[in-house]
Amino acid sequence: MDIDTIAAISTPMGEGAIGIVRISGEDAVAAADKLYKGPRRLEEVDTHTINYGHIQDPDTEETIEEAMVSVLRAPKTYTKEDIIEINCHGGLTSVNRVLQLVLRHGVRLAEPGEFTKRAFLNGRIDLSQAEAVMDLIRAKTDRAMNVAMNQVEGKLSTRIQSLRQKLLETVASVEVNIDYPEYDAEEMTLDMIREKGSEVRDAVDQLLMTAHQGKILREGLSTVIMGRPNVGKSSLLNSLVHENKAIVTDVPGTTRDVVEEYVNVRGVPLRLLDTAGIRETEDIVERLGVERSRKVVKDAELALLVLNYNEVLTEADEELFKLIRDQDSIIIINKTDLEARISLDRVRELANGNPVISTSLLKDEGVDELEEAIRSLFFAGDMDGGDMSYVSNSRHIALLEQAKRSVEEALDAAENGMPIDMVQIDITRAWEVLGEVIGDSVQESLIDQLFSQFCLGK
Amino acid sequence: MDIDTIAAISTPMGEGAIGIVRISGEDAVAAADKLYKGPRRLEEVDTHTINYGHIQDPDTEETIEEAMVSVLRAPKTYTKEDIIEINCHGGLTSVNRVLQLVLRHGVRLAEPGEFTKRAFLNGRIDLSQAEAVMDLIRAKTDRAMNVAMNQVEGKLSTRIQSLRQKLLETVASVEVNIDYPEYDAEEMTLDMIREKGSEVRDAVDQLLMTAHQGKILREGLSTVIMGRPNVGKSSLLNSLVHENKAIVTDVPGTTRDVVEEYVNVRGVPLRLLDTAGIRETEDIVERLGVERSRKVVKDAELALLVLNYNEVLTEADEELFKLIRDQDSIIIINKTDLEARISLDRVRELANGNPVISTSLLKDEGVDELEEAIRSLFFAGDMDGGDMSYVSNSRHIALLEQAKRSVEEALDAAENGMPIDMVQIDITRAWEVLGEVIGDSVQESLIDQLFSQFCLGK
Repeated sequence: MDIDTIAAISTPMGEGAIGIVRISGEDAVAAADKLYKGPRRLEEVDTHTINYGHIQDPDTEETIEEAMVSVLRAPKTYTKEDIIEINCHGGLTSVNRVLQLVLRHGVRLAEPGEFTKRAFLNGRIDLSQAEAVMDLIRAKTDRAMNVAMNQVEGKLSTRIQSLRQKLLETVASVEVNIDYPEYDAEEMTLDMIREKGSEVRDAVDQLLMTAHQGKILREGLSTVIMGRPNVGKSSLLNSLVHENKAIVTDVPGTTRDVVEEYVNVRGVPLRLLDTAGIRETEDIVERLGVERSRKVVKDAELALLVLNYNEVLTEADEELFKLIRDQDSIIIINKTDLEARISLDRVRELANGNPVISTSLLKDEGVDELEEAIRSLFFAGDMDGGDMSYVSNSRHIALLEQAKRSVEEALDAAENGMPIDMVQIDITRAWEVLGEVIGDSVQESLIDQLFSQFCLGK
Repeated sequence: MDIDTIAAISTPMGEGAIGIVRISGEDAVAAADKLYKGPRRLEEVDTHTINYGHIQDPDTEETIEEAMVSVLRAPKTYTKEDIIEINCHGGLTSVNRVLQLVLRHGVRLAEPGEFTKRAFLNGRIDLSQAEAVMDLIRAKTDRAMNVAMNQVEGKLSTRIQSLRQKLLETVASVEVNIDYPEYDAEEMTLDMIREKGSEVRDAVDQLLMTAHQGKILREGLSTVIMGRPNVGKSSLLNSLVHENKAIVTDVPGTTRDVVEEYVNVRGVPLRLLDTAGIRETEDIVERLGVERSRKVVKDAELALLVLNYNEVLTEADEELFKLIRDQDSIIIINKTDLEARISLDRVRELANGNPVISTSLLKDEGVDELEEAIRSLFFAGDMDGGDMSYVSNSRHIALLEQAKRSVEEALDAAENGMPIDMVQIDITRAWEVLGEVIGDSVQESLIDQLFSQFCLGK
């Protein structure tokens, strides 16, 4: 385990009023003291204090920055190590220069996520809490933030721990049974496996039921806008984007042309697909060809199909209905400011139970109804309420599904009179798999990989 | 004067490890206490302390964020008012949400630069110091940062104040002379005007001598790369950009296609013009037409003219030499890895004293020499040394020039035996104009305009 002292810029890159260089580790205070000129040495000040002074290059005695330096001593810190935060005037040159100076004095540049990794390795938070920190930063809606916040606070961890506890009790009971067969508690043990096993299975099931919504909250609901040319796709896009402030994100690892556009529609984060395409040609099929557009539509979790109120349905419209047959979709009949020519009966028939909304995007009519339809499609049922302990992370979902399978196998085995030590294997496996959610018994390489997806300075 | 409590996001917009919402004003602590849940109320904690806790919406009791809240009580703060900094997990949603919550509890959104404006209005810093804060944030090179830092620390202010003091003594002496003519100190007063006036004029001159370099440090040296197609302009651009880490800035108020690319060449911030054009067509004249390219070249402060070592000089090359005749320029003879066909004698003749550098950009040869030529063209003479009290701001330069003219007029008037109260008018005018540099006697509308160019949260 690395115990050297690390540093990074912890504020976003760009021009801003405040930039922060964060240092963590045993030598943090000593390293900062080499550069800090103020009324008292940082070594002597109390923990959790803010100290005004200047950052000076000790070699040239040149004053680099005016700064407020926060001193936070272990263990009550983010990493459980000593932390120094040098709070300077924002600006790329300024913050970089302070960082470079720090790195010349026995401190190493932190890897992405390394501060949070230390919080995990030093036992302040478990793995699911650490993962939620990044979700918190990337959250696109308030609701997604609440889910992440709950997870940071350990609500998911607590649930997972209580399930593991139940499994552990069962295993212990089996052990007793194996070690002292003369004690003959086999029937009692089998009863216990049935009871606790069912409880765990049901609880895991409940968690998994929140996974679909949780995942969408975390990653956004991928949405495609479709329709023939000139039905108003661009207008729909603009209307959604303008009313809901789009967040445009560069997708890491891709060319700079690929951007994701998010809009927050009443708490539902729509990840709009192919918006560049819509802005360019208004015709996804024409642009991509039938095959590729079929794929785009298939990959989407929600399709918004736009029709023209002022025209009769064409063969192309019917084709589009076929494309979205198996998908969550909303049918939008646009241009209601013009004369009615479309057959509403036929549209409803083709819609096949999916909501049909009439709009005049030109006159800004019907947008409320559309947004409400999106909301209620997504927040159907009780999930809307206060319980934000969604499972949102694909890694967690996969592990929970594995755990569920192992518990079910144990229950089957117990039911079919298999030897009790065989049953134990499945229970132990479920216990281990649940442990991976919170970072018990995970491989170092996985940990490295998880934290490498973090942003710098966290 | 506004004395309400203000708040803004003080970290750059974007995903980062830390985001800060800053609150300043009389109600800052009380407002934060409505939202903060921690071991103690913020009202009760010491100043300059960091307090761990949660940000909670008091209406819904929903926990919004985990936060470290800094309490900084007046007067030892940035604004000289009470300041609260809510230091939360970075990320757009998170920081925005905390800000929105703050704004719902009796706090107003700060205007750009309003924190620094308060520092000025509350007398912690003068206007030239306040202006330098933004220079510090926008600095593109270490040297530019040093200049800004010195100005923030008040070095320019001190000089200006000492000049004003001299003028004030002269005015006082004139006043005595006018009020008590029987005292007959007229000759003494005229001597004093000559002496102090010359001192002030020379000192202002010295400041203005640093202005050219100071302005370039602050704003960058606008540089155009020119040459016929296929001589290697793109290679030169790439070589400068790759070796010196370009900073690409969106230019506010223009379409998003216009970006400025800065490279820091040995301390000289080159602002590269028309880089998009070079990347597109390699031929500025072909793309813009002769007239417009003439204008681009004329607007530039430095021209880099690229020639092909492997070809004889063409009429087009000679045309380009004519374009840059009156300009600082460096001639780059590229492709020295190929056979010599160019007439070096003719190039030197056309270069007319400007440096001529041979390169093979393909083989990465000659780039060092080129960068050194740029550096020495800019940092000619003694200015390279430790004195960083450059005047860099156009507003200051204009005021210093005005002050110099007024002092010169006073000196002339004294020389020509004008009545002493006429001389006094010019001296007083110079005193007032210098006062505007540091924000004495400036109009409110100017102050508003200056601070509106700041970034949010500063």
